[in-house]
Amino acid sequence: MYSVTVRDHMMIAHSFRGEVFGPAQRLHGATYVVDVEFRRSELDADNIVVDIGRATDVLRQALAALNFRNLDEVPEFAGRNTTTEFLAHALYTRLAAAIRRGDLGAAALGITHIRVTLHESHVASASFDGRLSDTA
Amino acid sequence: MYSVTVRDHMMIAHSFRGEVFGPAQRLHGATYVVDVEFRRSELDADNIVVDIGRATDVLRQALAALNFRNLDEVPEFAGRNTTTEFLAHALYTRLAAAIRRGDLGAAALGITHIRVTLHESHVASASFDGRLSDTA
Amino acid sequence: MYSVTVRDHMMIAHSFRGEVFGPAQRLHGATYVVDVEFRRSELDADNIVVDIGRATDVLRQALAALNFRNLDEVPEFAGRNTTTEFLAHALYTRLAAAIRRGDLGAAALGITHIRVTLHESHVASASFDGRLSDTA
Amino acid sequence: MYSVTVRDHMMIAHSFRGEVFGPAQRLHGATYVVDVEFRRSELDADNIVVDIGRATDVLRQALAALNFRNLDEVPEFAGRNTTTEFLAHALYTRLAAAIRRGDLGAAALGITHIRVTLHESHVASASFDGRLSDTA
Amino acid sequence: MYSVTVRDHMMIAHSFRGEVFGPAQRLHGATYVVDVEFRRSELDADNIVVDIGRATDVLRQALAALNFRNLDEVPEFAGRNTTTEFLAHALYTRLAAAIRRGDLGAAALGITHIRVTLHESHVASASFDGRLSDTA
Amino acid sequence: MYSVTVRDHMMIAHSFRGEVFGPAQRLHGATYVVDVEFRRSELDADNIVVDIGRATDVLRQALAALNFRNLDEVPEFAGRNTTTEFLAHALYTRLAAAIRRGDLGAAALGITHIRVTLHESHVASASFDGRLSDTA
Repeated sequence: MYSVTVRDHMMIAHSFRGEVFGPAQRLHGATYVVDVEFRRSELDADNIVVDIGRATDVLRQALAALNFRNLDEVPEFAGRNTTTEFLAHALYTRLAAAIRRGDLGAAALGITHIRVTLHESHVASASFDGRLSDTA
Repeated sequence: MYSVTVRDHMMIAHSFRGEVFGPAQRLHGATYVVDVEFRRSELDADNIVVDIGRATDVLRQALAALNFRNLDEVPEFAGRNTTTEFLAHALYTRLAAAIRRGDLGAAALGITHIRVTLHESHVASASFDGRLSDTA
Repeated sequence: MYSVTVRDHMMIAHSFRGEVFGPAQRLHGATYVVDVEFRRSELDADNIVVDIGRATDVLRQALAALNFRNLDEVPEFAGRNTTTEFLAHALYTRLAAAIRRGDLGAAALGITHIRVTLHESHVASASFDGRLSDTA
Repeated sequence: MYSVTVRDHMMIAHSFRGEVFGPAQRLHGATYVVDVEFRRSELDADNIVVDIGRATDVLRQALAALNFRNLDEVPEFAGRNTTTEFLAHALYTRLAAAIRRGDLGAAALGITHIRVTLHESHVASASFDGRLSDTA
Repeated sequence: MYSVTVRDHMMIAHSFRGEVFGPAQRLHGATYVVDVEFRRSELDADNIVVDIGRATDVLRQALAALNFRNLDEVPEFAGRNTTTEFLAHALYTRLAAAIRRGDLGAAALGITHIRVTLHESHVASASFDGRLSDTA
Repeated sequence: MYSVTVRDHMMIAHSFRGEVFGPAQRLHGATYVVDVEFRRSELDADNIVVDIGRATDVLRQALAALNFRNLDEVPEFAGRNTTTEFLAHALYTRLAAAIRRGDLGAAALGITHIRVTLHESHVASASFDGRLSDTA
């Protein structure tokens, strides 16, 4: 299995509901350094998994809708705890859709898995790893 | 598959037996920067894999029994080479038991896999990755 | 010159005023991974710059007043842009006061300089580096 | 599953053919920081996955044939785009052969999987992960 | 003293002349992960050292002239060994000129020092640290 | 001012005397990831601060005398707490002597400062920074 991973980041505010979150129930924020790993079993005709430049652009666009926002006010997240693992899945869904739309080019349709990891500090991170066909 | 990873470290002394270890047969030591990845296929009702605060506490407790010790004198390791990969498994066993005991809360019983990685330097690490049901 | 550096982090929300900040004028947030470097020209009687455990505790306390907060609502920062470099200085001031109060022990009075660095992402950071006597 | 990972690097020049590569069609270069992860389900008699010293030596030898080279002039790569993912596979092939030849010792024949990751910058990497029996 | 640091990278090919360089006399290449630290003693009216967005843009432009190039063919470097430390100085000169031209805004004229660090691998880096008035 | 920094590591056992050290009074150990920064105001005739290959070799030799040792049994450290900051100075002294002996070549006599940093974990480090003429 081959993979290519690209990195970017976003800076958001949010709050959580539930005693388990302790002081994180207050409005606070986070920098998420985001790694997206694209996987496939064979390389394309150019010997790549995905064009790194295009993958970087698609990741930036996926982050732009959330970057510099208070996630408590983003309609699609209403009533949900926007935890690190939840956001990893939300980004996965956006990136999977971008691939199916062809935003990464026709050759990128050969990508079968994506793993999205959000590093919230030097000591904690969360990820979602999925198979594209499962979300088609 | 979702995951959450937390990081801590321990500082221990030990020595190895066997020619393969060369100068590491002498009493020496290591800082192990320890990453523990908890995995499950669905999030719990709070939208988390595990409470990061509780996971960090449980990891600290698991390390406390070994931290600032000479592992050559720890009874349960008598006669064993406490290599990085062996210690990754030893910590896995402790963390799996902690989950089964409910130390991470009832919701954490949904965790199915743990991966423990010990970084012994900037150029070497070892890990053990297991399925919890296999060790029940 | 000797130094000791310890690391911790905080997660805050805030917004900025001024066109230069672009989208960061909106309420957003950040994880700041904080490195504090303590410097002095000679070691103390124990051969240390400062007790790393105590330094870590003092840093944690300095961060606790801000951690998991919306800085726009912290009274002492009213009317100020809580930029990364501003926060580096704010933490410097707290740590310098802690040393003068003896929170780090009598031997730590020999510390002459502190540098506080806040990493706001994998590609940006800010710091303040000062001489303690200048702030006495 | 147990793993051990070792790290080294190489510095090469090359160029790519294909519009997808944009400015990387020009002769340029890269530092590849290379992580090799060896995996197996059981430890050997010494409680290790592989001797880290020997693994480091074998990795250095695998890199030596390419290090400080213009890959456009390496005969075995003629007519191929030496992308990061392609090079990850090329190194995998060499390391798998080294294990089968016994370069890592008889006990290392128990290794079943290798993952080779090449970090080309702080924001991009590629890998190949394979099962040794598939390449026998 | 306050500082702000931003990071980007470039990927170049080059060769060196001189026995001291050993195999690096051959055409090879490097990824340079570049950190630029801007320093000044007081913050500007917006409470910043420099606009991080603008600093990132100016760094990208400074790197663009060299990125994806064979430095052996860059006229201004003819007859020079483009070592990591030499390139750190070359970038310093470009960035100092950009500040004097006002590319970073009028407030950035208060910057007094720049440090440029090029990381050529996980185990080696070089830097140039200069005072702007010295190069006026 | 120009600098070049190289990295290596050592793995040692030791214990400390003094209540301030708490559990670190027990025999334990550490991996020290060691960064050595060489500084000078002008480059040599080859456009370098120091030959990175030679600097790496000299650092490895300086570490070899301590690597895989119990520092409590090293005669020259008898009666001393081998703290991270103390070891940074001990390595500085060895490296300064190596330069004066010419181990880094005649051109390296132009080096005026060395900074030795020992990272003992992902959250703590210590350093010694000195001017070579002061130790001549």
